[in-house]
Amino acid sequence: MTSVHMDQISWVEYQQRVEQGAVVFLPCGATEQHGPHLPLGTDALLSTALSADVAAQIGGIVAPALAYGYKSQPKCGGGQHFCGTTSLDGATLIALVQDAVREFARHGVKRLVLVLGHYENTWFVTEGIQLALRELGPGCELEVMRLEHWDFCREDTLDDIFPDGFPGFALEHAAVIETSLMLHYLPHLVSLDKIPNDPPADFPPYDMYPTRTEWVPPSGVLSSARGSTAEKGARMADDIATGITAAVRHEFKLEA
Amino acid sequence: MTSVHMDQISWVEYQQRVEQGAVVFLPCGATEQHGPHLPLGTDALLSTALSADVAAQIGGIVAPALAYGYKSQPKCGGGQHFCGTTSLDGATLIALVQDAVREFARHGVKRLVLVLGHYENTWFVTEGIQLALRELGPGCELEVMRLEHWDFCREDTLDDIFPDGFPGFALEHAAVIETSLMLHYLPHLVSLDKIPNDPPADFPPYDMYPTRTEWVPPSGVLSSARGSTAEKGARMADDIATGITAAVRHEFKLEA
Amino acid sequence: MTSVHMDQISWVEYQQRVEQGAVVFLPCGATEQHGPHLPLGTDALLSTALSADVAAQIGGIVAPALAYGYKSQPKCGGGQHFCGTTSLDGATLIALVQDAVREFARHGVKRLVLVLGHYENTWFVTEGIQLALRELGPGCELEVMRLEHWDFCREDTLDDIFPDGFPGFALEHAAVIETSLMLHYLPHLVSLDKIPNDPPADFPPYDMYPTRTEWVPPSGVLSSARGSTAEKGARMADDIATGITAAVRHEFKLEA
Amino acid sequence: MTSVHMDQISWVEYQQRVEQGAVVFLPCGATEQHGPHLPLGTDALLSTALSADVAAQIGGIVAPALAYGYKSQPKCGGGQHFCGTTSLDGATLIALVQDAVREFARHGVKRLVLVLGHYENTWFVTEGIQLALRELGPGCELEVMRLEHWDFCREDTLDDIFPDGFPGFALEHAAVIETSLMLHYLPHLVSLDKIPNDPPADFPPYDMYPTRTEWVPPSGVLSSARGSTAEKGARMADDIATGITAAVRHEFKLEA
Amino acid sequence: MTSVHMDQISWVEYQQRVEQGAVVFLPCGATEQHGPHLPLGTDALLSTALSADVAAQIGGIVAPALAYGYKSQPKCGGGQHFCGTTSLDGATLIALVQDAVREFARHGVKRLVLVLGHYENTWFVTEGIQLALRELGPGCELEVMRLEHWDFCREDTLDDIFPDGFPGFALEHAAVIETSLMLHYLPHLVSLDKIPNDPPADFPPYDMYPTRTEWVPPSGVLSSARGSTAEKGARMADDIATGITAAVRHEFKLEA
Amino acid sequence: MTSVHMDQISWVEYQQRVEQGAVVFLPCGATEQHGPHLPLGTDALLSTALSADVAAQIGGIVAPALAYGYKSQPKCGGGQHFCGTTSLDGATLIALVQDAVREFARHGVKRLVLVLGHYENTWFVTEGIQLALRELGPGCELEVMRLEHWDFCREDTLDDIFPDGFPGFALEHAAVIETSLMLHYLPHLVSLDKIPNDPPADFPPYDMYPTRTEWVPPSGVLSSARGSTAEKGARMADDIATGITAAVRHEFKLEA
Repeated sequence: MTSVHMDQISWVEYQQRVEQGAVVFLPCGATEQHGPHLPLGTDALLSTALSADVAAQIGGIVAPALAYGYKSQPKCGGGQHFCGTTSLDGATLIALVQDAVREFARHGVKRLVLVLGHYENTWFVTEGIQLALRELGPGCELEVMRLEHWDFCREDTLDDIFPDGFPGFALEHAAVIETSLMLHYLPHLVSLDKIPNDPPADFPPYDMYPTRTEWVPPSGVLSSARGSTAEKGARMADDIATGITAAVRHEFKLEA
Repeated sequence: MTSVHMDQISWVEYQQRVEQGAVVFLPCGATEQHGPHLPLGTDALLSTALSADVAAQIGGIVAPALAYGYKSQPKCGGGQHFCGTTSLDGATLIALVQDAVREFARHGVKRLVLVLGHYENTWFVTEGIQLALRELGPGCELEVMRLEHWDFCREDTLDDIFPDGFPGFALEHAAVIETSLMLHYLPHLVSLDKIPNDPPADFPPYDMYPTRTEWVPPSGVLSSARGSTAEKGARMADDIATGITAAVRHEFKLEA
Repeated sequence: MTSVHMDQISWVEYQQRVEQGAVVFLPCGATEQHGPHLPLGTDALLSTALSADVAAQIGGIVAPALAYGYKSQPKCGGGQHFCGTTSLDGATLIALVQDAVREFARHGVKRLVLVLGHYENTWFVTEGIQLALRELGPGCELEVMRLEHWDFCREDTLDDIFPDGFPGFALEHAAVIETSLMLHYLPHLVSLDKIPNDPPADFPPYDMYPTRTEWVPPSGVLSSARGSTAEKGARMADDIATGITAAVRHEFKLEA
Repeated sequence: MTSVHMDQISWVEYQQRVEQGAVVFLPCGATEQHGPHLPLGTDALLSTALSADVAAQIGGIVAPALAYGYKSQPKCGGGQHFCGTTSLDGATLIALVQDAVREFARHGVKRLVLVLGHYENTWFVTEGIQLALRELGPGCELEVMRLEHWDFCREDTLDDIFPDGFPGFALEHAAVIETSLMLHYLPHLVSLDKIPNDPPADFPPYDMYPTRTEWVPPSGVLSSARGSTAEKGARMADDIATGITAAVRHEFKLEA
Repeated sequence: MTSVHMDQISWVEYQQRVEQGAVVFLPCGATEQHGPHLPLGTDALLSTALSADVAAQIGGIVAPALAYGYKSQPKCGGGQHFCGTTSLDGATLIALVQDAVREFARHGVKRLVLVLGHYENTWFVTEGIQLALRELGPGCELEVMRLEHWDFCREDTLDDIFPDGFPGFALEHAAVIETSLMLHYLPHLVSLDKIPNDPPADFPPYDMYPTRTEWVPPSGVLSSARGSTAEKGARMADDIATGITAAVRHEFKLEA
Repeated sequence: MTSVHMDQISWVEYQQRVEQGAVVFLPCGATEQHGPHLPLGTDALLSTALSADVAAQIGGIVAPALAYGYKSQPKCGGGQHFCGTTSLDGATLIALVQDAVREFARHGVKRLVLVLGHYENTWFVTEGIQLALRELGPGCELEVMRLEHWDFCREDTLDDIFPDGFPGFALEHAAVIETSLMLHYLPHLVSLDKIPNDPPADFPPYDMYPTRTEWVPPSGVLSSARGSTAEKGARMADDIATGITAAVRHEFKLEA
């Protein structure tokens, strides 16, 4: 038996699977504070785990995650003033994605999915994809999907998990969704006893630079992670993996 | 008990250890063909494993590896014509290292070691370090060590492992050293039965562009991996980890 | 009497007002299709008009707008396949903002507000601000606010204007908000008779590259602009100008 | 009736006119001190006004001006030490022009004219055009004209306006030509009573860095603007518009 | 006796002379067609020779010339369509100059002169100097002079050499000035018998891209080099060397 | 008779020889300390001299050397702390090479050899070549060879010159090989009496940043140059020129 993980298979096996039309997934994470209860690698770990679940269903391949992402912003990741958050300039992330897409195209990959686990990556990943496709030119057969995994949580799931109303994905940094997903996939990396009980952060409709660090809870958790469970994580992981699988099959015209 | 891996600990724990003077290790790997018997992730996997061995001895922290590296060259990695080899432009790798060093300096890290597992990375990593230190300015307290891990194999070990003479590190791509180290650390990712038995590659004292692909064995293995064993791997891993540990203690003035 | 517009006053007058602590506003627009009924310059025109309203209240100065912005995306601006949409690479916009912020700091400006009228600009403007502040160093006294103007529409206003429920800002491209604001500020540039009556666009929770142009209505309007009026525009303009004025006074500690 | 200004027409109208072969004009200005009597936006305002005059004669389109230009130099614009002068790095201006040219080519524009109103822009605009054409490749049908508008003043006009001898375009910064053109096009933005009466600046045949600010009159006016009149402005505007119109018709083979 | 040429002295001698306050000259040339009678290296050769003459008078040092320059333009160098013309992108030349200035500052050089022998270099060299000084910060003691050598020809010399009127420096590419200077300094590299006898080029007051190659004489000579002599070259070389020497002494406050 | 040096011939002659298939050589040197006995220009001077020897044998052309190279490293060139060493950032060198290769391709050159005389240049030159070829696309007929000249010294020569064992090329900076080659080619630039008699440098198997300057002999000579002679230089020059000539004939399929 073999692995879905590109870094665990030989080039010979990779080539065979690419020639058979395998979809390649590139998880785009970050090294970013996720409160005192989740590890710094949460974004890369979750986007990799979810990609692997999808890849297992459709014979896909998961490339090594981008372990560093764009700079953390106060409103969605706490901000750059946290120790441990290790971020890239926008130009670096753009170049990283452009290089990766160019290389997958050279391999003969026709179907590539960038699975984002860090919200701040979105626009720089988008630019990297667009620059790569411009460079590759109109003859290139590669098609690329880009997604943020949490957008595949079903509405009824969110209704059940947040009976008092869903606070929105922005405030969900290191909160119930990410904590539950980590409890599902990597429970040994979660310290439930260290979950802070701060009230949710409340941000005005603008941003200030330099960062007004007093806007962000000192723990780095933007809304409480209390109530996180592995069961909730399993349900959301299922939503996400099922949703991405369906999207990939639909857009890339794979047989189910 | 806690992990040496930065991506598995919280920012709170990371901060405490950095404040205590922990050495941070940044493995710099590649996604590159390593013959039909080793996985594409060999360089990142080995530099991470060796970094973890050192970190365990001195209370260090291993940052997430750079999983993509500079373009593979025929004489040391087979070249860019192999499927699966997924490489960065020089400017991208320089920027990635510069960003990472800048961030570790912001964290208060004083001692940083870049552990290279991919020879082609050397000069671009060097430039990234130098640009970061120039940007940080003369007041910055950060000191950086950069090394290629195989340079710490002891001469007597190489004499024993290569009784007919050591072919040199360049031809060792996917050969006895890397295969033995993988058998030591990650034997389930090695397919001993797929080791090709090609004669060693023979290169002229110059390079040609576009790549003369006929110079490189089709397997991507530059000299034979036959004779690789986990025991040899263990001995070399011990050399390397011991050697790096001593170097780090010496240069960073740590107490043993 | 003098102008709030920087390009209409002399450097001598500008300098005097900056020395008195004037807030500088930099509108960040785009040249982008806005359907058959709105002009290509809508984003720069509106962000300039709103900036001028705020500047008039607090003795501010409006710098010349960035008339070109980041690439239009299908879900928020229709996409890059429209003729007339004239966009910048991410790196260009980052550099443009970084240069501008550096220059305003040299002038002695202490309070700068970037008023975005084009959603796609957000992250590249953010990066430009952050790079400029990093370059200027910790001694720099400049503080920067960044905002998207529509975020200052009050909830009760949106409830009144969208009695059937607000479709969200994303689909509001060239729709009721922008059309009403244009009817308020620049009615001669609006062709009410050309408003298309397409149903709102419906997008999946992911993006595809190259753009699936069939996802986007051929008119470029993402939800209907029917029902737009100058009165609605006036009410929203008042919300926005009042809200930004209050935010600016609060964050920059201006006396009312 | 419709506008010659791209930002005031819809994409639908723009597309129709481009399909009919309309010439597109891109004014390249600056935000730069122009003495105490002219506004900071003079260069963009004049290059836009002159472009509009030409466009009106040949059914052309005037794109939104580049409102920021390359760094002001002592000998032609007073230098970067003036408050209010807000300039771009060379790389930023190059990129801005390259992006714009690439986009106009995508629209199907075949005839593009860059109308410079700021001397310091010349070489960076030139590089931007050349890089764009290199990127677009030999199959691209776009032809580009680049000009500085004052070069179209007729010799007899200059003889009449400067009966004591024309001091040269370099010293004409904020002097008789620009002031007269502003009196013709935008008289409400000119403060004739604030024209300084400094003697013309006198520069050696070399440049010094950092800027020797004592070489430049404190007003920023390099030779006197006394004697400027709207009539002189009208005559020069006519020279320029007529000359550009003829050049455009000749080079782009338009019927008169 | 020792050399004025930096590449011919040891670092020890260089250091001593820099510590004594030596002025460093950096010739900025090109590899560019100069007609059938002058060599491709004319611009670097002449700017080096003139720099050496000045350096000999004031104890200066001549750094190795930048042998490649910015792209040749039709109106001043014939254009990029000539075989042999080997040019740099603007960004490359900017970076080259910025790097060089940064390094001379590190050496302790306080007085640096960039001697341009290729008109197209001017603005990119200017930007490189400005970026280097910005990076070095306000505490840096380095002062930089930038000049085009021909601007030091005295008016009476030009009157004598061009009795029918001086055509202007632009058309002087590969014409009387450069040919005479080469006959003075490097006569063995001049083929007087190959001077073409084309009439002077006549350019309109705008530029076209792609280059209208028919505007440029096929020989690459923009006005005739007939009448060039070593004596004229000697006189102009004396003007230039004397003029630069005086300028350097004046600006850098050297004792004569 | 004519020159092998591109900067000494006219474009017309250059074009003729390129059309006849001439091989072009681009020497890639440095401005770098070479001890108290060798000049700062050693690397460019030697790579140019050796290129000229080869070019003379095969009707080749030697382009002007890149006189500045990548940053000197302690283990191979002494390091960046020496006065006089004048180095480029990696990105600058990459761009310089990419621009040069693009231009030679435009000229119609089919055979290009980059002759490196400075070890630190290797990887940035490699990247420049690769980026140029990627940009030129698969249809480009240009083939490029890249070499470090010392790699063509024959083993028996090294055995004779170093009877006590060859210390390796790394420590040969400013030592017997370079000094002997300079005595052969440019003896007037060698100060034999200033050769220091330091013991060879001894470096650990890692690098430290900022540079541990105490690792490097204060003279900058990494192993003794004692014993250098013009005869040894002649023998090595012959090895190198003969070896490169053979390689060039072989790879580019020239008739001997």
